[in-house]
Amino acid sequence: MRLDATTCWARIGPFGHGTLGTLHPDRGLDVVPVVYVIDRDQIIIPIDAVKPKSGRRLQRLSNLAADARCVLLVDHYADDWSELWWVRAHGHAIESHPSPDALAALGRAFPMYRAADSVTSLIVMTIDSITGWSALPDPA
Amino acid sequence: MRLDATTCWARIGPFGHGTLGTLHPDRGLDVVPVVYVIDRDQIIIPIDAVKPKSGRRLQRLSNLAADARCVLLVDHYADDWSELWWVRAHGHAIESHPSPDALAALGRAFPMYRAADSVTSLIVMTIDSITGWSALPDPA
Repeated sequence: MRLDATTCWARIGPFGHGTLGTLHPDRGLDVVPVVYVIDRDQIIIPIDAVKPKSGRRLQRLSNLAADARCVLLVDHYADDWSELWWVRAHGHAIESHPSPDALAALGRAFPMYRAADSVTSLIVMTIDSITGWSALPDPA
Repeated sequence: MRLDATTCWARIGPFGHGTLGTLHPDRGLDVVPVVYVIDRDQIIIPIDAVKPKSGRRLQRLSNLAADARCVLLVDHYADDWSELWWVRAHGHAIESHPSPDALAALGRAFPMYRAADSVTSLIVMTIDSITGWSALPDPA
């Protein structure tokens, strides 16, 4: 069954991880695993110094600088398909310096981000549309 | 640490689910959760009659008919980040009628696909490049 926007936001808030899709000028598109927190109506995705990355400027940031459109998929998979659900948010994003509020929220959600300098930058995603689907009705 | 191609294929084979990214003519890109099986060096993604979908032709199929480029991300998330790993395959895909071999492989991997007419079509993805990353070295 389709999930309404309120239910979509409620489900992705505590989930905390998903797949970010951006547009690549040559190969069309890129997808990367990300973690995130919700700040009001925006999705905050950290660029961190915790999980290893290539030394070059991250492709996801180059992609967003050239075309800000992006999509986040939050997918709850289970071998029992009656437990499946997903939420997908289309929007656009910019890179931003980490604010104290954002760092605090990230630290609450992910203990690895409580270390100083663990988050070097943010992707701040503004949502244009959010849709979702669940095999089971929402318990609320 | 980076995973070589052999390790990438070995890890995604039994995993069976991931995120498929395709190019959308207007909004840039789409991502959908998918299940899959590996057949030699191709990734076989079923279009099924099991999980509900909108009645129209699936957007992922329209997207691929217009631009065959696509990407599959297989993401193993864990709250303990020492267990993180992911594999990403870039390639191109076409829609295909389900062959008996493909239906048998899907039925072995997913009991829900043993029912007649549960798989209506296939996305057959040919891989141009496959890369991966794991927080821990491969145990092999």
